[in-house]
Amino acid sequence: MTENINIKIVDNVKDMQALSNRIKKEGRIISFVPTMGALHEGHLSLMRVAKEKGDFLVVSIFVNPTQFGPNEDFNKYTRDLKGDIEKVSEIGVDVVFFPDVNEIYPEGFETYVEVQELQKPLCGQFRPGHFKGVTTVVLKLFNIVKPDIAVFGEKDYQQLLIIKKMVRDLHLEIEIIGMPIIREEDGLALSSRNAYLSHEDRARALALSQSLREIEKRFKEGNKNTNDLVQYGIEILNKSSITDIDYLEIRNGHTLESKKEAQPGDLVAIAARIGNTRLIDNTKL
Amino acid sequence: MTENINIKIVDNVKDMQALSNRIKKEGRIISFVPTMGALHEGHLSLMRVAKEKGDFLVVSIFVNPTQFGPNEDFNKYTRDLKGDIEKVSEIGVDVVFFPDVNEIYPEGFETYVEVQELQKPLCGQFRPGHFKGVTTVVLKLFNIVKPDIAVFGEKDYQQLLIIKKMVRDLHLEIEIIGMPIIREEDGLALSSRNAYLSHEDRARALALSQSLREIEKRFKEGNKNTNDLVQYGIEILNKSSITDIDYLEIRNGHTLESKKEAQPGDLVAIAARIGNTRLIDNTKL
Repeated sequence: MTENINIKIVDNVKDMQALSNRIKKEGRIISFVPTMGALHEGHLSLMRVAKEKGDFLVVSIFVNPTQFGPNEDFNKYTRDLKGDIEKVSEIGVDVVFFPDVNEIYPEGFETYVEVQELQKPLCGQFRPGHFKGVTTVVLKLFNIVKPDIAVFGEKDYQQLLIIKKMVRDLHLEIEIIGMPIIREEDGLALSSRNAYLSHEDRARALALSQSLREIEKRFKEGNKNTNDLVQYGIEILNKSSITDIDYLEIRNGHTLESKKEAQPGDLVAIAARIGNTRLIDNTKL
Repeated sequence: MTENINIKIVDNVKDMQALSNRIKKEGRIISFVPTMGALHEGHLSLMRVAKEKGDFLVVSIFVNPTQFGPNEDFNKYTRDLKGDIEKVSEIGVDVVFFPDVNEIYPEGFETYVEVQELQKPLCGQFRPGHFKGVTTVVLKLFNIVKPDIAVFGEKDYQQLLIIKKMVRDLHLEIEIIGMPIIREEDGLALSSRNAYLSHEDRARALALSQSLREIEKRFKEGNKNTNDLVQYGIEILNKSSITDIDYLEIRNGHTLESKKEAQPGDLVAIAARIGNTRLIDNTKL
């Protein structure tokens, strides 16, 4: 007997849809947290909110191949269903949807959804096709799980904006909730990819959140020039020998438009490589 | 008092979704026929099937801007809501969904869905972006009307294949039904665009269906070479001075792959311009 005795694992689309149809017919609110597994406290914080907001909580675990580029970490991405189930058992998750890749991408699959503009800047520039893979799989999962509410983390801030736009543009009746980044005590944003970091790289990675704090501090002191602010951040990164920086940018927090003068509500977003590990972090001014 | 007294016209997304949610909660089956108006007997034949298959019949009338190219007939496309309502009043349509363009494409709209391969050949080659506009609006309409069944005409055969693929790929629980082309007694396929034809062009347009019949006849006589068969069809078109031919092709009826040897079940599809009017027609061998 284990704590997870009450978690139902559904591994195929038809069963998940039948279950969701039944729950909806009963008038119960389905809340949903899509994940790629390798769960950490960040994911669990989303699930707690989803549990509170709905009557029936579905968590999906699916490492989505279409959102990884050819030279990215799809194959080495951590898979640990047993560990993940143990973690979600504390939350009161009703169903873990854990489909096989052939269920989600059947032979001859060729339909993709794109949020054309919001997907272009920031990570979109450095991970071509990434957000197209994200929106496609999330739309599929929405059509399978049929949630009333779905909860995403603000760590993937651009992703959150894109999903919100997709839901609005496609008239999906799903409330999208974004939740704050969860950090280690020393400031490192939680990420499944932190597990790739050596002890030494883990220490260097602190510079990401430190650079965001530095920019926030300078902004509060009255410096609104985005070029200056970004430069202060880059100096912090360079001090930790982080030079492989995909981007460190200040953009409008809703439209992601770039800007010369920073304002409250703007997004400061960063992506950088520590060794072979690409990490992202962000904050709102 | 008119016959259409019982037809409810819904002009906005929220009301349509609320109505569809109510109908579904009652356990009734929603059937759906999306149209661009300018209704003719072809549309009405789809509605009769949809009426028979479902409990609650929704017809949408929306001239979708995103499926027209910049030099196409979006502006001159026939709009006749009053005439259309009169036509559907005989069928027992429960709701006409007649949204404003700003309801379907709100400001900042930027999300598109594409069926990447099936959209490439035939009309896709000559109407860039057309099928992207079709799949996007149909997905939107599906998310608004929430049908269990949707009925499309086989006249837009490529469109029908694309919609079926989209529904499968995105895991939509919607049964897509394709219905045969309705023709005038002399063979001309019904089309809203036939209204553009002069008396003389109307007579020339007969060559489209005649060329399909000629190809069918030659195939039945044992000629399976697609180049030969197509050539026979083109000769018929040329006899009626139809030389502006987008395509006349024989392709696999499911995958649309081109082929050298014709087989039963293959699609023969044609698109040609008579004056300024672009007409399509097709048949299965």
